[in-house]
Amino acid sequence: MLEELKKQVFEANLLLPKNNLVVLTWGNVSGIDESRKYMVIKPSGVNYDEMKIDDMVVVSLETGKVVEGNLNPSSDTATHIELYNKFKDIKGVVHTHSRYATIWAQAGKDIPPLGTTHADYFYGNIPCTREMTEKEIKGDYELETGKVIVETFKDKNPLYVPGVLVHSHGPFTWGKSPYDAVYNAIVLEEVANMAMHTKLLSEKDFKTMSSVLEEKHFLRKHGKNAYYGQKNRR
Amino acid sequence: MLEELKKQVFEANLLLPKNNLVVLTWGNVSGIDESRKYMVIKPSGVNYDEMKIDDMVVVSLETGKVVEGNLNPSSDTATHIELYNKFKDIKGVVHTHSRYATIWAQAGKDIPPLGTTHADYFYGNIPCTREMTEKEIKGDYELETGKVIVETFKDKNPLYVPGVLVHSHGPFTWGKSPYDAVYNAIVLEEVANMAMHTKLLSEKDFKTMSSVLEEKHFLRKHGKNAYYGQKNRR
Amino acid sequence: MLEELKKQVFEANLLLPKNNLVVLTWGNVSGIDESRKYMVIKPSGVNYDEMKIDDMVVVSLETGKVVEGNLNPSSDTATHIELYNKFKDIKGVVHTHSRYATIWAQAGKDIPPLGTTHADYFYGNIPCTREMTEKEIKGDYELETGKVIVETFKDKNPLYVPGVLVHSHGPFTWGKSPYDAVYNAIVLEEVANMAMHTKLLSEKDFKTMSSVLEEKHFLRKHGKNAYYGQKNRR
Amino acid sequence: MLEELKKQVFEANLLLPKNNLVVLTWGNVSGIDESRKYMVIKPSGVNYDEMKIDDMVVVSLETGKVVEGNLNPSSDTATHIELYNKFKDIKGVVHTHSRYATIWAQAGKDIPPLGTTHADYFYGNIPCTREMTEKEIKGDYELETGKVIVETFKDKNPLYVPGVLVHSHGPFTWGKSPYDAVYNAIVLEEVANMAMHTKLLSEKDFKTMSSVLEEKHFLRKHGKNAYYGQKNRR
Repeated sequence: MLEELKKQVFEANLLLPKNNLVVLTWGNVSGIDESRKYMVIKPSGVNYDEMKIDDMVVVSLETGKVVEGNLNPSSDTATHIELYNKFKDIKGVVHTHSRYATIWAQAGKDIPPLGTTHADYFYGNIPCTREMTEKEIKGDYELETGKVIVETFKDKNPLYVPGVLVHSHGPFTWGKSPYDAVYNAIVLEEVANMAMHTKLLSEKDFKTMSSVLEEKHFLRKHGKNAYYGQKNRR
Repeated sequence: MLEELKKQVFEANLLLPKNNLVVLTWGNVSGIDESRKYMVIKPSGVNYDEMKIDDMVVVSLETGKVVEGNLNPSSDTATHIELYNKFKDIKGVVHTHSRYATIWAQAGKDIPPLGTTHADYFYGNIPCTREMTEKEIKGDYELETGKVIVETFKDKNPLYVPGVLVHSHGPFTWGKSPYDAVYNAIVLEEVANMAMHTKLLSEKDFKTMSSVLEEKHFLRKHGKNAYYGQKNRR
Repeated sequence: MLEELKKQVFEANLLLPKNNLVVLTWGNVSGIDESRKYMVIKPSGVNYDEMKIDDMVVVSLETGKVVEGNLNPSSDTATHIELYNKFKDIKGVVHTHSRYATIWAQAGKDIPPLGTTHADYFYGNIPCTREMTEKEIKGDYELETGKVIVETFKDKNPLYVPGVLVHSHGPFTWGKSPYDAVYNAIVLEEVANMAMHTKLLSEKDFKTMSSVLEEKHFLRKHGKNAYYGQKNRR
Repeated sequence: MLEELKKQVFEANLLLPKNNLVVLTWGNVSGIDESRKYMVIKPSGVNYDEMKIDDMVVVSLETGKVVEGNLNPSSDTATHIELYNKFKDIKGVVHTHSRYATIWAQAGKDIPPLGTTHADYFYGNIPCTREMTEKEIKGDYELETGKVIVETFKDKNPLYVPGVLVHSHGPFTWGKSPYDAVYNAIVLEEVANMAMHTKLLSEKDFKTMSSVLEEKHFLRKHGKNAYYGQKNRR
């Protein structure tokens, strides 16, 4: 079942090592079908260069159970499911421990908008979640991780800020497809790298960008009058 | 039309990913013809590894309109045009979000000359523009970006300082050809990287290089008695 | 003798340059046989790309003497032997000068647990040894290096913390096989990199992660109820 | 003439880009013949991937003139010659603008010994020259660069400290052959990188390594009782 989606998810997973977003097996991509009933996700702990399309695992978004596949799904499966169930416009989710996004997560800090590279894709801070409570960690941990992400977005549009830093852990990103979620993971990592070094370079002068410029760049790519790329070709 | 220039611009664009100056599609190169009437530029949002020579877009430097090509030109087209119209000796322009040049742009700081690597190619500070005003950002934004660059160079020779940092955005470089402009983008990125780390290492001892040494190195490569390379072969 | 082990050790050594853990010949991997009588180790000063399986050297764990092989064993041989003789559950050892682990060793600091990437593999601080005394350095130096590592672990389980920083020198890691020891060397280097940058980013806010989260992640991968990967497949 | 030496120098030059020591054409290697009469050196401003063995230039160490070759020799030729004429045991010289060595040169600081990676190859500080005077810069600049290096070594053995940082410029290294000089350039760059980051990580605790450990490691590799590598094979 879902052969085309399995292929998309498989190929999106291979983009993680290709774009230097993962060390060893530290990352996974999932995608969901049109009906939003099934999720296809990377199997847990399998090397990218040994993985085959048929190793992708199909999980029910309703029950959280595996409905097809011989391998265990990613141990982060419950987090992915929570995001799909609460963020109704997304169809792809990525989790990595990409270096600089993880550094911000370990520092427990939001990434502030410092330049147009950030503003082209993320509107406002890329938030870091609060620390999880002992009860959440000792409970249904991966589900609770999803819940704390959703809580962080209670006043945010997840398509305007397509990613988050989980405190003391690392980034999740999402998008309209598995590929789009990986695209946002690439952007987040580069933005996190630049932001950290901008902070070191700026020292006491450290400040966010002009909010006018921020809005201009986000809307240049994403608003209804967007004019970047080939979508509105003459 | 302009087949040779299209080839030059195409190949110069491919040098951006080859030299690690771009992530995703974040960079573009243009060039102009001998008559300074036409500009050839990368199409907007197209991946470097899928791009063909015939995708290059020809734009009139006078009207800013596309005169040949099926794709939208780079969204930064109006900035490129302004630079060609005001800097009369340049024939190639590059825009990227290369990491360390962008970090300086995000910090809103000029890159001071700290060593001969800088002085071999850029004479004096590599300036960062002032922040753009709300009116400029909400107006003809890309044209205004070009204007603020030109304003920054009102007392500078653009061939002596072949690049700039646009505040909160990233670098533009230029040169006597598309290849030359890419060459200067490579230099700028390495100089920006070294300068940032020199500042971190130096802390309170941070200072610019000797102006005598600076002049010596710039003229060793660029003055009329230049003796680097093979131009004045015995 | 020990042909299968030689192959494992040879291949594990080649993973060092492949994973950017070594410059020139600055790293070595060893493994021991089931009886814990013999160690196979990289020859000293030989380039990875010229090395053959038959160049691996067999050394007695009891006498420290070469029992097979035409080349000198790694100059760190006595350190490896001390670790095998005192840490009874390990069967592979790696020494490198990998960049960020070495930076922490040169700073003489333990790497504190700052996030789940660390906690997934190392339980608590990755310790830095005390400085060695003049007597130790001028005595049987490589053996003494092993002894100071063992002293550092007098209250630690080496399988829970599968690596150490030798003060002013660099990292050693170990594991249940030569491959496992290299795996831990890869993890250590990435964790060291992230920890250094987290410290720079955090400045005065620098603090370790929640101990509840730390325990959760270590046990998710290593406890008897571990559920990461494919070991407990449905 | 000197065909074997030309091949050695050519191949040593190609090791610079292979080991990420150069951007564009920013580096050159030379070597001298047994009689110490002739130097073979890279031509100026030629790309490494277009260079042929026959492009190597032969220069007289006595007159400084080209005695064979169609191209201009490196613009740093006079510096190389001064080093060969004053450091009587060296037979290869390298100049690069490798990133971290250049950062220390731009900061105008010696690289202190912080760990065994440094002590394995460089005995004591890797010195930074004093700033050159206006007269030296405006005079026979490249020769004066050599002289200020030699002045820096008036109390040092150049084989014990096989490299230097030229203030506001970049590193020179040397050795018993062109290959050996490149080897030391690789070591210097890695040591410079680690030392800078160790300083950032250490902050107020920053200090050099134990001098006993420093001596032990240098002699383990270089003294008459050296036991690293395969030279004293059993």
